[in-house]
Amino acid sequence: MDFQSKLLQNAVDQMGSLPGIGKRTALRLVLHLLNQKPQEVQQFSDAFTTLRNNINYCSVCFNISDADTCHICRNPKRDSSLICVVQDIRDILAIESTRQYKGLYHVLGGIISPMDGIGPDDLNIAPLIERAEQEDVKEVILALSATMEGDTTNFYLYRKLHSANVKISVIARGIGIGNELEYTDEITLGRSIQYRSLFENSLNN
Amino acid sequence: MDFQSKLLQNAVDQMGSLPGIGKRTALRLVLHLLNQKPQEVQQFSDAFTTLRNNINYCSVCFNISDADTCHICRNPKRDSSLICVVQDIRDILAIESTRQYKGLYHVLGGIISPMDGIGPDDLNIAPLIERAEQEDVKEVILALSATMEGDTTNFYLYRKLHSANVKISVIARGIGIGNELEYTDEITLGRSIQYRSLFENSLNN
Repeated sequence: MDFQSKLLQNAVDQMGSLPGIGKRTALRLVLHLLNQKPQEVQQFSDAFTTLRNNINYCSVCFNISDADTCHICRNPKRDSSLICVVQDIRDILAIESTRQYKGLYHVLGGIISPMDGIGPDDLNIAPLIERAEQEDVKEVILALSATMEGDTTNFYLYRKLHSANVKISVIARGIGIGNELEYTDEITLGRSIQYRSLFENSLNN
Repeated sequence: MDFQSKLLQNAVDQMGSLPGIGKRTALRLVLHLLNQKPQEVQQFSDAFTTLRNNINYCSVCFNISDADTCHICRNPKRDSSLICVVQDIRDILAIESTRQYKGLYHVLGGIISPMDGIGPDDLNIAPLIERAEQEDVKEVILALSATMEGDTTNFYLYRKLHSANVKISVIARGIGIGNELEYTDEITLGRSIQYRSLFENSLNN
């Protein structure tokens, strides 16, 4: 698309640089902004620069936080013997919404992905090892994506955490609740048979 | 979703104010921006404020333009006896991409929609009447949405343009090329039978 206006072209290009936003959607969003009052557009733009320039991460778990430690790490009711390792803060929000987990978190900030040039040193792994070596930590739960990169990262963390005296667990993988066997892929189905659990254990839920 | 960070909350709220962007998508986009360098986020934000504060519309057709008149109105090869009335500049881009139209445009900036509080005075209708009354204009083509609001606006324009000595036409409505009769709604199908054209005319394409 050729807009014949450099300002419009630039705005559409910037909007289209967001993941999952194509050129047509970008144009629709930019035209929406054009219909807003100038001060509203200013507020829109300022929200992102202010966030980016003033963002703070929890010094313990690397969750996004306006204070030095996040609301989860600060909460005395949470079980500090459990650390759940996640990729980013969206995963914290997803797990929190289940209301099933009362431990703490550790945000890695990504997963090991040589294809994208992300190695172990780019992630918050060293602080995790340090946390796991503290006396009161009993279990580290690996809750990363069930992808090859997730598995690689799990294995890397498993070896690194070996020296710490903690139990290392991984979230259950199997067929999703409400799914039919017929439509489950063979790898998931194979693993769900291999890692079957006692029926009487499933009655607790 | 409760982010426990006012900066993040504000950024997600602003992103989520865009049409068609839900809270989850907004969070994904904001986290993407957080992973960018501060100066990249600055560029991102500046694109919209710069566009909004410096936007210029063509003084003739109200297309977006960096100059006083847009590239279409300036082009001597375009047929200035034809004016195609559209709702916004996305429609110009859509019609231009067909390469079937060589006339000029007129951007209304919306359609009459009492439900949204948009009346005739909120649109660029008066300048259209003025343009249509010029001697060299021979035809005004109404190319608005085939919705009730589009029809209302078409009828309003038809009455307003009556005094100008121009032919007033409306773009063809009927079943889309490549569509099957079976899946076409009855109103479209009914109109396409009512407004049938001679078969020999369709051979020209």
